[in-house]
Amino acid sequence: MKKKYVYELLLKVRDYECDLQGVVNNSNYQRYMEHTRHEFLESLGENFGRMHDKGVDAFVSRVDIQFETSLRSGDSFLSCLNVSKVGPKLVFDQDIYRVGDQVLAARGQVEIVVVENGKLTREEYFDEVLKKLE
Amino acid sequence: MKKKYVYELLLKVRDYECDLQGVVNNSNYQRYMEHTRHEFLESLGENFGRMHDKGVDAFVSRVDIQFETSLRSGDSFLSCLNVSKVGPKLVFDQDIYRVGDQVLAARGQVEIVVVENGKLTREEYFDEVLKKLE
Amino acid sequence: MKKKYVYELLLKVRDYECDLQGVVNNSNYQRYMEHTRHEFLESLGENFGRMHDKGVDAFVSRVDIQFETSLRSGDSFLSCLNVSKVGPKLVFDQDIYRVGDQVLAARGQVEIVVVENGKLTREEYFDEVLKKLE
Amino acid sequence: MKKKYVYELLLKVRDYECDLQGVVNNSNYQRYMEHTRHEFLESLGENFGRMHDKGVDAFVSRVDIQFETSLRSGDSFLSCLNVSKVGPKLVFDQDIYRVGDQVLAARGQVEIVVVENGKLTREEYFDEVLKKLE
Repeated sequence: MKKKYVYELLLKVRDYECDLQGVVNNSNYQRYMEHTRHEFLESLGENFGRMHDKGVDAFVSRVDIQFETSLRSGDSFLSCLNVSKVGPKLVFDQDIYRVGDQVLAARGQVEIVVVENGKLTREEYFDEVLKKLE
Repeated sequence: MKKKYVYELLLKVRDYECDLQGVVNNSNYQRYMEHTRHEFLESLGENFGRMHDKGVDAFVSRVDIQFETSLRSGDSFLSCLNVSKVGPKLVFDQDIYRVGDQVLAARGQVEIVVVENGKLTREEYFDEVLKKLE
Repeated sequence: MKKKYVYELLLKVRDYECDLQGVVNNSNYQRYMEHTRHEFLESLGENFGRMHDKGVDAFVSRVDIQFETSLRSGDSFLSCLNVSKVGPKLVFDQDIYRVGDQVLAARGQVEIVVVENGKLTREEYFDEVLKKLE
Repeated sequence: MKKKYVYELLLKVRDYECDLQGVVNNSNYQRYMEHTRHEFLESLGENFGRMHDKGVDAFVSRVDIQFETSLRSGDSFLSCLNVSKVGPKLVFDQDIYRVGDQVLAARGQVEIVVVENGKLTREEYFDEVLKKLE
């Protein structure tokens, strides 16, 4: 049932990410999604830390995550994304699937704005980067 | 501009919560909101860990957070919530304000389902707890 | 059995800090200790983020923590510290006690070096700050 | 200069692990080391979460970490370990090297005790597991 994505990253649950309920704490899915976006960026030749040093910062303006099936100790998962431009924003659709049975663990939509030397840009910075996707 | 809330918790940024952009990493707002819900629960005489030991678990089914103003090292903030029942779900409206100028840092809506001994309940467990709010 | 300390900070366990064993994950004691040092610094009129902006960074060179009693959901604790200069290093003795029965949860020794604009200092920066302790 | 280890795990810095100093926050090395021990355990056919469900818990009794070179955004690293029995404890020697130049980032010694159904064991549980190393 997995869709097609422009980028997929294989990760594994780390036990310190599980909480007293014995499942991955919800806040970590947001972290998984951040790491996936940054690895996607690296796959396009850019690095988040270097961008910051150049005065370009991508900020999350909204995150909307639906939690479907809890990941647990020992689980591997595939963290997938698609990206589109909606006005001045980059919108990432990010789904996380448990490896093995491909059950959907979480689906998220994350909106990003880009700030260059302190002022909002219209994402021209990423136009250049995303061109490599075409 | 702050609204009225049934529960407010005063917290302070911890520096390890800030990332290389020099601001609180987004995933931590979700953690602040979780901690606020659990402290709210304690204010009503219940504890999340004890609930788990009794076989009652509250799971987050959806989180929708809009990030308005970044918190930074040294900032204190007020983490506020209201709660309502929508069908079988508890819906928490959670706003975070920077202390000093009361600027809104983040606003979130968090949906909770309650599972008792492995099966979804219609929140009867919380009816009892929330009655104390009236 | 609690010793005398130059600084004490009252904190409470956050449930996302507990892991699947139902107790606070060990790495969080290191975070508690960091936050305590930084709050101690603020009590002396300095802020870690502002220091970084001025080109002064305190780096941890060594951390040695003994874990005595696990903290759990609902526990409050007192995070205490003493500090001394040992050669070019600041050495913090940091003990964490559970509130209520004053049981020792963890004791740590943390060594700090200070780097000013990229080069190691002999802590002159902190001499000024620590003078306020006398 | 890298020594020989019984287990090595390749990992990459995640940007949310970096703090406002632009380097990996110290507490995360402790997390890297925990994850490495648990992956080592999996390589021997055991899982930390499953152990807990069986009533066997490994607790860290002491951690001693020396920080040598800060890891940064974009860095990959090799997290390595050796293990020995010292009396009733398991002692892990854990070194972390930056990939590329093999610079030592951190070296740690982590002591573990094993508790079976609430009482300290003499590690018989791990004797069985570690036998596979020979």
